[in-house]
Amino acid sequence: MTTSTRIVLASRPHGAPTAENFRTETAELRPPGEGEVLLETLDLSLDPYMRGMMDDADSYTAPIEIGQTMVGGTVSRVLESRDPSYEPGVLVLGYAGWQTHSVEPAKRLTPIRDTGLPASTALGVLGMPGFTAWAGLENIGKPQPGETVVVAAATGPVGSMVGQIARLRGARAVGIAGGTEKVAHLHELGFDAAINHRADDFEDQLAAATPDGIDVYFENVGGKVWDAVLPRLNTYARVPVCGLVANYNSTSLPDGPDRSQALLGRILKRSLTVRGFIQNEFAATQTDAFLTEIAPLVADGSIRYREDVTDGLDNAVAAFAGMLEGRNFGKAVVHIAD
Amino acid sequence: MTTSTRIVLASRPHGAPTAENFRTETAELRPPGEGEVLLETLDLSLDPYMRGMMDDADSYTAPIEIGQTMVGGTVSRVLESRDPSYEPGVLVLGYAGWQTHSVEPAKRLTPIRDTGLPASTALGVLGMPGFTAWAGLENIGKPQPGETVVVAAATGPVGSMVGQIARLRGARAVGIAGGTEKVAHLHELGFDAAINHRADDFEDQLAAATPDGIDVYFENVGGKVWDAVLPRLNTYARVPVCGLVANYNSTSLPDGPDRSQALLGRILKRSLTVRGFIQNEFAATQTDAFLTEIAPLVADGSIRYREDVTDGLDNAVAAFAGMLEGRNFGKAVVHIAD
Repeated sequence: MTTSTRIVLASRPHGAPTAENFRTETAELRPPGEGEVLLETLDLSLDPYMRGMMDDADSYTAPIEIGQTMVGGTVSRVLESRDPSYEPGVLVLGYAGWQTHSVEPAKRLTPIRDTGLPASTALGVLGMPGFTAWAGLENIGKPQPGETVVVAAATGPVGSMVGQIARLRGARAVGIAGGTEKVAHLHELGFDAAINHRADDFEDQLAAATPDGIDVYFENVGGKVWDAVLPRLNTYARVPVCGLVANYNSTSLPDGPDRSQALLGRILKRSLTVRGFIQNEFAATQTDAFLTEIAPLVADGSIRYREDVTDGLDNAVAAFAGMLEGRNFGKAVVHIAD
Repeated sequence: MTTSTRIVLASRPHGAPTAENFRTETAELRPPGEGEVLLETLDLSLDPYMRGMMDDADSYTAPIEIGQTMVGGTVSRVLESRDPSYEPGVLVLGYAGWQTHSVEPAKRLTPIRDTGLPASTALGVLGMPGFTAWAGLENIGKPQPGETVVVAAATGPVGSMVGQIARLRGARAVGIAGGTEKVAHLHELGFDAAINHRADDFEDQLAAATPDGIDVYFENVGGKVWDAVLPRLNTYARVPVCGLVANYNSTSLPDGPDRSQALLGRILKRSLTVRGFIQNEFAATQTDAFLTEIAPLVADGSIRYREDVTDGLDNAVAAFAGMLEGRNFGKAVVHIAD
């Protein structure tokens, strides 16, 4: 028998999640049945979308039930296999969630391509976040040479890829991040301009960094960054909306006036395209094209990535809460086993 | 010498335009120079966009200056020509504005195709409003067979075309209009469902008329119709935004709470496409395709249209103010000369 240690949703958060919203449990796992494998989790991905699934609200995914293991993308090692596709010892990408071991149907797993890179990259630069950036730009943002692309949370796994792909396409990349250390990192990544959203003169800095306006705003945060970006969007600008992390912990609508009709008015006057998306929409048909283009560029160092690794499942809750406040620096990963 | 009677902008309106914002003048016209023609205005188009141009605000077109003749699309007869393209007596589509006569460069005019229909159709069903509907659906709304398309101001020249094209594409057309007479007309036009937005149970009626949700909302009014539509938009719904007439006379933002971030949240959660547009974006490349498809259908009665004709330039101001309040019933046209 294998024992799995897991973190389950104990209660729904009101605002920012706290330790009381989670509970650690252990469970004896049944042996894998026909077509199943027993997995040991090596790396767990922490992503902002998980916050939405903790609510019992109308969202784009079904909520996590109280008592259910917290969900999440994982890199795991196969310990036992009752499926011919997987030998013991191989590494797989799956969705085992916040736990040390699990039994999963083999058909829900993906073999991890041998790119010569650490397997954890399948959770970040070569995984869902990297693909989110690539798909949002390919399908919606469509940056053209000489255009200006702005992205917030720019040192995160989505934002850093957005900026680097924008530059690959010949566009000017402007990154927004919180804090001087992150801003310095954006320059290292090759962003043409980098702005600290915590600066008092943030709006003026954004204006100075986008003298020709903004053609693509890759929206993953919302809030005050959106307010500063909106008036600078050029006619025919495109806004892929893949996240609004600034609002995820909000418990009520902000005070007025109500600017929702004014937002529509701006969309009209500037012929803007504002398009929400979740990467699943494009994953089945475009993942191969993404990996074919991007994996070699990551392997040869032309595209850089950064991970923010937390050791141990015990520390996952704190790391998750920190990520929602922007305290991670790079792709948030919990390292559970070697 | 030819005398032109014209209506100029006397002052900028604060809220709804009133008679004091306009002034009638007469002017002696100089004879047409080389490449110019002298025109007599037969029909003047009244359109919601003109309200925006009366403001000295950031809009998608330059404002009308104080003292300048009110702008507008016109059907005119050539009285004198100093350009080889136009013989005296022919009818042309132009942008002469709110005046009885004008001298125009020939290159700013378009010959009116002989469709066997009244020339005023070049201002409505076969003109800018009809093309707006067609282009918004072809390029953004993309209604598929079996989908539900909703449009407000549905007896107007844009809305009635949206509904009829939606049905041509095999979609279900739901029209929203103000008053029982207009609702009855929508049924005559072949809309699958028609709703009176003045009804107390408007939201319930909309829900009943869209049991499978809404796939395309052609936005030309904004305000409370938008509020009722938004929660009913399906995943991947498309919203071409070509007008927000409900807001054009607004002088301040409505009271809170501020729902603008919630709007972005809905765009994200439903993977919505919200896309502003002005028909000029598509006119140069797509007008031929529009006329080739639609003119024969109007000529044979498969596509119906309705005009709301006001006689005499003297009555243009009242007709314009009425249109902004939805009092017109069909395409608003001022008939100036036979």
